[in-house]
Amino acid sequence: MGCVIGGSTHPAVAKARNALSPFFGYGWCTLYGHGGASRADAQHAALLNGIASHVHDYDDTHLATITHPAGPVASALLAIIEHLAHTKEPGLTTGEEMLTALVAGIETSCLLGLSVWPSHYDIGWHITSTTGSLGAAAAVGRILRLSTEQMQHALGIAASQVTGLRCMFGSDTKSFHPGRAAQAGLVAALLAQQGYTASEDSLEAKRGWANVVVGGGQPQLDKHLAQLGTSWEVKKNAFKPFPCGIVCHPVIDGCIKLHERLLEQANVNKHQDVDLTKLQIRAKVHPLVIELTSKRKPRDGLEAKFSVYHGAAVALLYGKATPAEYADDVVQDATVIAIRDAIHVEADADMRAEQMSLTYVCPFERRTCTLVVEHALGSLETPMTREQLTRKFVDQAAHVLGKPRAEDASRRMWNIAAAKDVTDVVRWI
Amino acid sequence: MGCVIGGSTHPAVAKARNALSPFFGYGWCTLYGHGGASRADAQHAALLNGIASHVHDYDDTHLATITHPAGPVASALLAIIEHLAHTKEPGLTTGEEMLTALVAGIETSCLLGLSVWPSHYDIGWHITSTTGSLGAAAAVGRILRLSTEQMQHALGIAASQVTGLRCMFGSDTKSFHPGRAAQAGLVAALLAQQGYTASEDSLEAKRGWANVVVGGGQPQLDKHLAQLGTSWEVKKNAFKPFPCGIVCHPVIDGCIKLHERLLEQANVNKHQDVDLTKLQIRAKVHPLVIELTSKRKPRDGLEAKFSVYHGAAVALLYGKATPAEYADDVVQDATVIAIRDAIHVEADADMRAEQMSLTYVCPFERRTCTLVVEHALGSLETPMTREQLTRKFVDQAAHVLGKPRAEDASRRMWNIAAAKDVTDVVRWI
Repeated sequence: MGCVIGGSTHPAVAKARNALSPFFGYGWCTLYGHGGASRADAQHAALLNGIASHVHDYDDTHLATITHPAGPVASALLAIIEHLAHTKEPGLTTGEEMLTALVAGIETSCLLGLSVWPSHYDIGWHITSTTGSLGAAAAVGRILRLSTEQMQHALGIAASQVTGLRCMFGSDTKSFHPGRAAQAGLVAALLAQQGYTASEDSLEAKRGWANVVVGGGQPQLDKHLAQLGTSWEVKKNAFKPFPCGIVCHPVIDGCIKLHERLLEQANVNKHQDVDLTKLQIRAKVHPLVIELTSKRKPRDGLEAKFSVYHGAAVALLYGKATPAEYADDVVQDATVIAIRDAIHVEADADMRAEQMSLTYVCPFERRTCTLVVEHALGSLETPMTREQLTRKFVDQAAHVLGKPRAEDASRRMWNIAAAKDVTDVVRWI
Repeated sequence: MGCVIGGSTHPAVAKARNALSPFFGYGWCTLYGHGGASRADAQHAALLNGIASHVHDYDDTHLATITHPAGPVASALLAIIEHLAHTKEPGLTTGEEMLTALVAGIETSCLLGLSVWPSHYDIGWHITSTTGSLGAAAAVGRILRLSTEQMQHALGIAASQVTGLRCMFGSDTKSFHPGRAAQAGLVAALLAQQGYTASEDSLEAKRGWANVVVGGGQPQLDKHLAQLGTSWEVKKNAFKPFPCGIVCHPVIDGCIKLHERLLEQANVNKHQDVDLTKLQIRAKVHPLVIELTSKRKPRDGLEAKFSVYHGAAVALLYGKATPAEYADDVVQDATVIAIRDAIHVEADADMRAEQMSLTYVCPFERRTCTLVVEHALGSLETPMTREQLTRKFVDQAAHVLGKPRAEDASRRMWNIAAAKDVTDVVRWI
């Protein structure tokens, strides 16, 4: 929800809304971030909130598959909940029912993601949205109380809509993917409720979802779906401390630590100025960092999310990497550019995904020093604390709602499990 | 248009409409087949008309790729034309402008289809819809007068939405595919018009559409796109004489000829009764017939479309295979079942797709006879005549609109090229 609110004022959301508002049906569902003033039908709410959830690349991450499951699932789920509250009597959903459906959706996304990982992602599919439509269908299907057979068809209709190509990374269409996945899953569940049929073996058929989306690979559905209900992927779903591709988080974490270390040394050395372009930083990283985030000269905030160099530069310069450090003017700032250009990053096959090691020439000690991050902040070993999560939520939401309303929204959301009526929690956000 | 009207009363369309009508926006666009009385916003009109266009498997076919391009393209195109007529001043589209956009969309679909054929289809994608969203985006983009850059993004947004798995054949979701493709292309063009961006090389990028959708295959974009504007795939788009998988048309054509031959001989032999279960028919066909349409015991009309045996049986028994011969009660008829069960079909790698050869034991001549079809009706060599097309249109439309209005609609559609305002032609259909 923090990401949806934070993303709601992004130009990509405004463009999508301008394009599609002439088609809106009854405004029964909230477009979050506008204090309940801005509403749309459930299909468009799922789409636009889904876009907002991902547009800052700041959403949750299932680390084993680099899937961001909550955006597609929750965007569809909250939309159908608000829709039912307006169209059905009694159509209220409790917080517990909502969370059950959310977990069902996230498990569906993540287990299907594991089943086709890694060949699915390697070929070029954006796994967040290709599995997100299935997760959204499961969550909405749960709220609609679909029968087993209807749920089978809902998953099939969702499976037939495979949205998300990796070549879109760096453009508005990247965030369109989870939005469209939310909408696709919602539509699939609604169609199945009316008896619309799909194949009975949509996932496992020879020409069904799993085989088709791995290209020539070998999906492993049986292996992963066997854990349903016993071991939980939702517990391995992490939260991002920085609003960019998760693979560069260890470098950013390391550079924030370096910023702090240099600040401390500068204090000791009576505020001697440090030229950050002269540190000769050389970072060793997991190979995927180079593959996914090697944009040397990002032109705007969106491209900067795929630049490990930008993340490292703002971490060094400001000691933080929040959405503010990914604003276009920061990306185009001459000082940031100079630091960015001076950083060297290289792949090292021995590095784990959450690990990083860098060397730099210390201006105080006048020798090459090393800084190592074993488990970046946001990893399963070093999760964000409840306080850090609250700060992340409020930091994002305050830009849109102002601080008091952002803090109020944070409190509401932390307490949603106890809610008798979910719409009462969310419709003023 | 004939197929959309004919399909409009199919239960699949009713189910989809029931599921989605609570989300309709302003009803500016016609749901064809209801005489202008039933309307929806353009997104839902594109979806529902697109479903109707394909639900009887009776639509046009680009034979080189087994793509049915007009359904997705025209459903999106007519929807945006009606939308603009209501929301823009002056928002009228001439018949010539509409046809230009239709050709642009069909060329886009077919050339992209050729570029990824055959591996794309072999893996399990429903090529009609996976290329249909791109064709729809091109057609709508043309009507919206998108700039080159906007069109590039429109095609990218459409490319990111890959709908259609072959495992759905035989279920309602098969016809959902072209409907969703129409809607996806429409949404893509509308988003691009508002500046929503995609990758600049969505089709040709390493992890772009063509490479991703062929799995491990080798797409050939350059080769096929080079013919844009010089050679026309729309001229190789054929019309189906029978409402079922096109691969079994040679067998149906042959069995209709056999019906006529036996009727003639029966007349000569003073109406001697023929037991159609005793003919010992053995048909040799292109291997794809067996792969795609080998349902031995279809349970209903939908499954019967994928049964070469059913097509052969009704052709033998009734001398025709129109939608009426694919009604559920015909599929379940004991006489039809008995004839169906007595027919033998086998793959022969030497057969062309539009060819077939069968042997049977003639009850009059009391010997094994042969009947060969070199180019089935509906092939490029034996196209349907204008009269046959008109009969096909009226036959489909009369079930829905009644014969006088069906004939009126046929006349309107034949003359659409000269129309000053396309909406004036179509909104009463």
